Amino acid sequence: MCMNSPFFPWLKDSRLDGKTVTGDLSAALVVTLMLIPQSLAYALLAGMPAHIGLYASVLPLIGYAIFGKSPALAVGPVAIASVMTFDALIPFFEPGSSEWIAGGMFLAVASGLILMVFGFLRFGFIAALLSHPVMSGFVTGAAILIILGQIKTLTGIPVTGGTALQQLQQLLANMGDVNWVTLSVGLSTFLLLLLARRLAGRLFKLAGVRGLLLDILTKASPLAMIAIVTLVLVSTGYNSDTQTVGSIPTGLPTLMLPPISSAYNSLLISALLIGVVGFIESVSMARAIGRIRQVSTDSDAELRGLGAANLLSGLSGAFPVTGGLSRSVVNLDAGARSPLAGVFSAILMVAVLLGTGQYLESLPLASLAALIIVAISSLLDWHTLRECIRFDRADAAGWLVTFLGVLFFGVEHGIMLGIALSVGTVLWRQSRPHIAIIGRIPGTEHFRNVQRHRVETLDNAVFLRVDANLFFANWDRIREFIDQQARHLSNKGKVVLSMASVSDIDSTALEGLQELARDLNSRQIELSLCEVKGPISDKLKRVHLFEQVTLHLSNNEAFEAINRNVHCTKQVSEPT
Amino acid sequence: MCMNSPFFPWLKDSRLDGKTVTGDLSAALVVTLMLIPQSLAYALLAGMPAHIGLYASVLPLIGYAIFGKSPALAVGPVAIASVMTFDALIPFFEPGSSEWIAGGMFLAVASGLILMVFGFLRFGFIAALLSHPVMSGFVTGAAILIILGQIKTLTGIPVTGGTALQQLQQLLANMGDVNWVTLSVGLSTFLLLLLARRLAGRLFKLAGVRGLLLDILTKASPLAMIAIVTLVLVSTGYNSDTQTVGSIPTGLPTLMLPPISSAYNSLLISALLIGVVGFIESVSMARAIGRIRQVSTDSDAELRGLGAANLLSGLSGAFPVTGGLSRSVVNLDAGARSPLAGVFSAILMVAVLLGTGQYLESLPLASLAALIIVAISSLLDWHTLRECIRFDRADAAGWLVTFLGVLFFGVEHGIMLGIALSVGTVLWRQSRPHIAIIGRIPGTEHFRNVQRHRVETLDNAVFLRVDANLFFANWDRIREFIDQQARHLSNKGKVVLSMASVSDIDSTALEGLQELARDLNSRQIELSLCEVKGPISDKLKRVHLFEQVTLHLSNNEAFEAINRNVHCTKQVSEPT
Repeated sequence: MCMNSPFFPWLKDSRLDGKTVTGDLSAALVVTLMLIPQSLAYALLAGMPAHIGLYASVLPLIGYAIFGKSPALAVGPVAIASVMTFDALIPFFEPGSSEWIAGGMFLAVASGLILMVFGFLRFGFIAALLSHPVMSGFVTGAAILIILGQIKTLTGIPVTGGTALQQLQQLLANMGDVNWVTLSVGLSTFLLLLLARRLAGRLFKLAGVRGLLLDILTKASPLAMIAIVTLVLVSTGYNSDTQTVGSIPTGLPTLMLPPISSAYNSLLISALLIGVVGFIESVSMARAIGRIRQVSTDSDAELRGLGAANLLSGLSGAFPVTGGLSRSVVNLDAGARSPLAGVFSAILMVAVLLGTGQYLESLPLASLAALIIVAISSLLDWHTLRECIRFDRADAAGWLVTFLGVLFFGVEHGIMLGIALSVGTVLWRQSRPHIAIIGRIPGTEHFRNVQRHRVETLDNAVFLRVDANLFFANWDRIREFIDQQARHLSNKGKVVLSMASVSDIDSTALEGLQELARDLNSRQIELSLCEVKGPISDKLKRVHLFEQVTLHLSNNEAFEAINRNVHCTKQVSEPT
Repeated sequence: MCMNSPFFPWLKDSRLDGKTVTGDLSAALVVTLMLIPQSLAYALLAGMPAHIGLYASVLPLIGYAIFGKSPALAVGPVAIASVMTFDALIPFFEPGSSEWIAGGMFLAVASGLILMVFGFLRFGFIAALLSHPVMSGFVTGAAILIILGQIKTLTGIPVTGGTALQQLQQLLANMGDVNWVTLSVGLSTFLLLLLARRLAGRLFKLAGVRGLLLDILTKASPLAMIAIVTLVLVSTGYNSDTQTVGSIPTGLPTLMLPPISSAYNSLLISALLIGVVGFIESVSMARAIGRIRQVSTDSDAELRGLGAANLLSGLSGAFPVTGGLSRSVVNLDAGARSPLAGVFSAILMVAVLLGTGQYLESLPLASLAALIIVAISSLLDWHTLRECIRFDRADAAGWLVTFLGVLFFGVEHGIMLGIALSVGTVLWRQSRPHIAIIGRIPGTEHFRNVQRHRVETLDNAVFLRVDANLFFANWDRIREFIDQQARHLSNKGKVVLSMASVSDIDSTALEGLQELARDLNSRQIELSLCEVKGPISDKLKRVHLFEQVTLHLSNNEAFEAINRNVHCTKQVSEPT
């Protein structure tokens, strides 16, 4: 197993010792108990038959273990990817139809391939496509859309869909059509889940339960609550008055390629967005896990791991998956130390698929809706909005615009808006490189910003320090600034660029520097460079720039050389 | 006229003196002579009736003069915007139909509004959406597509369209269907245009013509060559055997809103792309002009100017326009000193519209195709490709991928690919901030990279200098690097961040710094910051960061303070 191989990258950091295997196994037990109801619920959220969610919880976990690296990221169906899948398919197919399922498979295969290719190309940097505030606004908006959608299932009130506002209006308008059995089931599950979340741990502790058993019992409590509601429903005979999960085929998913449809061309952008959003969420979770487990995070390995997970999800008949936030936290707490936890989870899920199908068939949909609402409410991230409002208005605006974008235009257009905002922010920051006019602090060899320090400057010469790498996105502004300063110089003037902070330069800026030297020379102004780093100097030599410009080692050397020049006289300027 | 008003921004730099007015007037004469045949040709390229090109050369020039700033940018129909317009409309309408014309109006109005809004929002930084090599690859690819398209008109060989390769195949397969009259007209115009370009200036000079008259006669020569071919064709009676411009209505365009169509939703992205590409090309031309005329360039004013030009183009029944490269060069050479040159050009064009329609009707399309080929060949920019191959492989790859993207997937997908490449490059550069481990040069207070210099370092303490602003796109990598270094430290270790190059920090990095301090503290490692700039220090104070971290004024102060600490011992490291 070569250390640089993309396979099983986690073997570098984890040892396959008893501690790892025990930790992973107990974490798998706990996580699987959460995964069973969540898989069913998120499959329904994606418009799929419920059992497909179980399929999405087997092979993808093994795929992630082959290429992924995080010691505790729990891969499988998640709410955001499911709602994005639903939104991508709804213009083309009928929810739950065989075309719908095939479309979901295509989305998973396509986003899996895209992520794997990105991973092998080492494109991990695309995590910067979404800033943290924008992602938070997106997730919060999507969570509200999901909750609104689940209220329909929880109450039985018919809602045909549309924007958040339209759905809310329909809910209010059709309140009379509420199905009382469904509502009772939904609300009682909801209350039981909240109670279990608050009390289960404490009650079991009071009863003297400790360690792994406590973990298992606590994490099994949502499943237990839903089981209780189901048993009551079946025993009272009201189960025919509300919708249930329905037939769950016993057996394992079979591997197959999704059939081809002409609509799939239009799904490619959706596949890309689902993959990228899932990756960005997962990699930030993986980073948090890595800090706690003291292992480095490799975003390229995460791309490959999530890509393999999605590819296998699609090939086994299921839909897009990614790293789930709440399950990952539980995984970590329960002691997961490597992706083996996921492999154990997959094995347990196989047992569920082979043995327990008939027990899951009577689960009422309203109970699963209540489960989704409880699970998703932890994604409502008002905290980040408050922090942004306090410390960075631009970030707060990004949060709000994305949030409102999701509510009014849906998840897909919302995330596109978010990407445009984040990328726009990067470009905007790029286009404002910091350039300082510098002078010499009297009696020293130090050069500082003339606006902040009392410094010596030279008449008919200007010293500029560029605090950025030079490349196409900032060169125009830099050039504009230099031109402005050079306009104050007369014949035989000097422009000195201090390049101490420049550690990279691209062909646009390289060409730009040549052009600058030429233009200044044509006006009898000399361009000098100083404090040029080695690699930059090599590049400048290759374009023969030093035939046009003077090179000085340090600011001070340039200052002294020009000071000897009769055309420039020294003066002391006060900070402004 | 307030100096900060967005109206007539060029009045800041240009005086409306005799020199300006004379220069602008003579430039207008010269440019209009080029503009007449080019307007007709580029309208045909956009699939419009030829006279619409003349409409696009009146009000847009006045719109630019109101909001634009460049002293010599010549606005009007251009080849790239025209071929993008054609590509945007072809999936929906029949070329030349009234729906087609209305679609073109919509594209112009929409891209005009988008650019104006961008301009007022000061979004000039979006010029960084396309790097220079990518733009060059795009323009070269588009030029080849245009030339291929014109060969059809020049030879009369029927070609139904498709990718570059498909068009080439059709041309070769249908070579037998060549229309000999059309081919003769096209080739003879082509040769005459090449001859005129090479010889006209010299011949007129030999004849003793100088100054403005020389300019006018030279720039009129393409129009004269086409006129000669037309006259020969009409006089020999062969004009019925080849297609001509056809009826040109006499009179001015009337102002109107484009009618509404449901297809327009799908055109919005195209409008955005046409506007942005036109802006990026124009603003780089405007910058080159600004350097020569020694005036500053304001990319926000260019956005507003081009926006107003497009808005008025659409409202006067025409299609998207932007700054033309070749006409701008001619405009500059001929002495244009302000956008008044455009206003004069518009007035001359009104005269053309009112008086000369019937003379233009017999122009053969093959001659206009020859004119396009000659004009567009200057856009074939192999020079940039060669330079990129020599100096920057990544830029060369960007050029080639965009070029091939245009040829195989068309202009619209090609430019999207180019934007993705350019934005990807920016994000990639961002994600690789330069971080150096620094130490003290013995006997000084200077701190330098340990890899390049012989420096003193402290045991169980690490000094890091981050050479970038801290924000969401680079924070993860910076954090990862710090974590890696901190892992080598034991209890009571110190991490010192030297913040001299940090002039901005966003909320993600701010939160990240807090988290970093907390995580390090939990491992008994202390985080110190030094050389923090004023505005950054203010931000850190607001999040109470200094309760968790130690602040030192300089690297040296931090070094001395830690050196007194029993847990860290001094040593000298050699460069690696």
